Amino acid sequence: MEKKLILALDFGNTKLAASTIFEGDKQWEKYERVEMDSCTGGEDHLNQMLKLADRILDGRLPDAIGVSFGGPVDFKTGKTLLSHTYKGWEDFPLKEFLEKKYGSKVAVENDANIAALGEYAFGAGRESSSMMFITVSTGVGGGLVLNGEVWQGFQGLAGEIGHMMIDPHGPRWWGRRGCIYRLSSGTFIARRARRWVQDEPLQGGVLKEMCDNDPYKITSKMVAEAADHGDKLAKEALDVSARALGLGIANTANILNLELFVIGGSVIKAGSRFWSEIVRVANESKMPEIEFKMKRAELGDEAPLWGAMELAVREINKP
Amino acid sequence: MEKKLILALDFGNTKLAASTIFEGDKQWEKYERVEMDSCTGGEDHLNQMLKLADRILDGRLPDAIGVSFGGPVDFKTGKTLLSHTYKGWEDFPLKEFLEKKYGSKVAVENDANIAALGEYAFGAGRESSSMMFITVSTGVGGGLVLNGEVWQGFQGLAGEIGHMMIDPHGPRWWGRRGCIYRLSSGTFIARRARRWVQDEPLQGGVLKEMCDNDPYKITSKMVAEAADHGDKLAKEALDVSARALGLGIANTANILNLELFVIGGSVIKAGSRFWSEIVRVANESKMPEIEFKMKRAELGDEAPLWGAMELAVREINKP
Repeated sequence: MEKKLILALDFGNTKLAASTIFEGDKQWEKYERVEMDSCTGGEDHLNQMLKLADRILDGRLPDAIGVSFGGPVDFKTGKTLLSHTYKGWEDFPLKEFLEKKYGSKVAVENDANIAALGEYAFGAGRESSSMMFITVSTGVGGGLVLNGEVWQGFQGLAGEIGHMMIDPHGPRWWGRRGCIYRLSSGTFIARRARRWVQDEPLQGGVLKEMCDNDPYKITSKMVAEAADHGDKLAKEALDVSARALGLGIANTANILNLELFVIGGSVIKAGSRFWSEIVRVANESKMPEIEFKMKRAELGDEAPLWGAMELAVREINKP
Repeated sequence: MEKKLILALDFGNTKLAASTIFEGDKQWEKYERVEMDSCTGGEDHLNQMLKLADRILDGRLPDAIGVSFGGPVDFKTGKTLLSHTYKGWEDFPLKEFLEKKYGSKVAVENDANIAALGEYAFGAGRESSSMMFITVSTGVGGGLVLNGEVWQGFQGLAGEIGHMMIDPHGPRWWGRRGCIYRLSSGTFIARRARRWVQDEPLQGGVLKEMCDNDPYKITSKMVAEAADHGDKLAKEALDVSARALGLGIANTANILNLELFVIGGSVIKAGSRFWSEIVRVANESKMPEIEFKMKRAELGDEAPLWGAMELAVREINKP
């Protein structure tokens, strides 16, 4: 029997990626990725992706297509509800559209859930049965895999660890206080360090050098690197974030008793101080009987594509 | 075909309950409950239950037995790990023991999980597919039902919402700060009101009357009732608890996107102020897109027995 051809698509907010692979293989047959320099809206977003897909398919029809989408999706119908970035994706029947165009089976999921599935099936989660995938980059996102299946929740909105509130006296954000997004995201690590550098003339020397004495050039990656170089101010700015995340992980572990937390995203990649502080606080804060492992994500930006591939394979093998 | 006879057992910490029912029925055939005035340990605990069971079985053999146990259980083997109250339950093969004694199928679960299953199958959760059951009495416990199945977690410890930390500046408890158990449990509602009554000579009049001016007589039930009678001090002591629980529910809803939260226990039953404040805070604190319902538990003390019955029926119908 011939091996099935899978097409995996990742509709990112600033980039598009597409790949082909044969069922059972561990390497992409073809892989392409483009930064979207300009995109006029949902229709253009879709058309740019179709061009990419047609280029790597090269006239062949895939047996199944898995799709990662940067925004909420009705996982039952495969309709996109909206895109976080582009207008025109409201209520678009993406699954149906691709089924008709390619005559293939199609499965669509949002990027956080599908990245979790990717790490579960091919990355850091390979040997576990239940895990949460958390990404810390500009925002804080999450996806759950329970007994090997993505847990979408009642409305498809599960996994929102960024909205967990861990400090009623914490900083305000959209009507609430002390949520993990406001405390831990890359956006706010940078903002915090920027403010502290301005308020502390005698601290943050390494960081000030890195940003050429221009606080507005400070990024979360820079803060993580400065912390690893011993900058005390950067360490403290980072620790606020790591502690909130550590508490969030402990709280989630107490509720769900998950085997594994996989953590990825640009801030995790940028330095080791952040990681070790998250691990320390999570372990100190969980209830004593609860066990879990914590691993760094392994698939990086490709996690959604690998999740899309897994989803497509499951679609083929559905009874 | 004759209807199957089910035996449901509830090994509580201060009481034993047992009932029989025919599969598909909505009413117990027989039901007995005893307060344990004295119990010398695990063996006595078990023997008292067997007497109760034999009395209601009256010589018949059940087709299946469901068991609720007040302590952690290895749900795969049906061994009890320990009892919260009695020595001698460590690593006891309860499932195997009952299978041999009655020649029946047996399923064993801990009380929080099985009560959640009871409310799901026969109580407030009847029309939902995913829910959390939370009890607020001396402690704060919880159990999860996801897609109609109890979610036990990796070690069987899932559902521990009482250990969620929602305030890093909150009161200390076993090495952590601001956990829901410390803020919301009946034990601490009473303790808080007791201290405030002593520290506030001009407040808490209703509560002082209820406890005959003896702060050590104050119970959480009394605080809930005094709050409903307009006692400002009692209201405030209760609100600390309700707000922590409301935050915990919102946090759990953001992570799991559950359809329903069912809340029970003696403090919930005692007054309406507590309930309305929990509902207000949970709805204010969730992320705006997230929806969920909140209902009061319907089965009271019988929830574990109904859950045990459901578990036994599932054991019979396993493929």
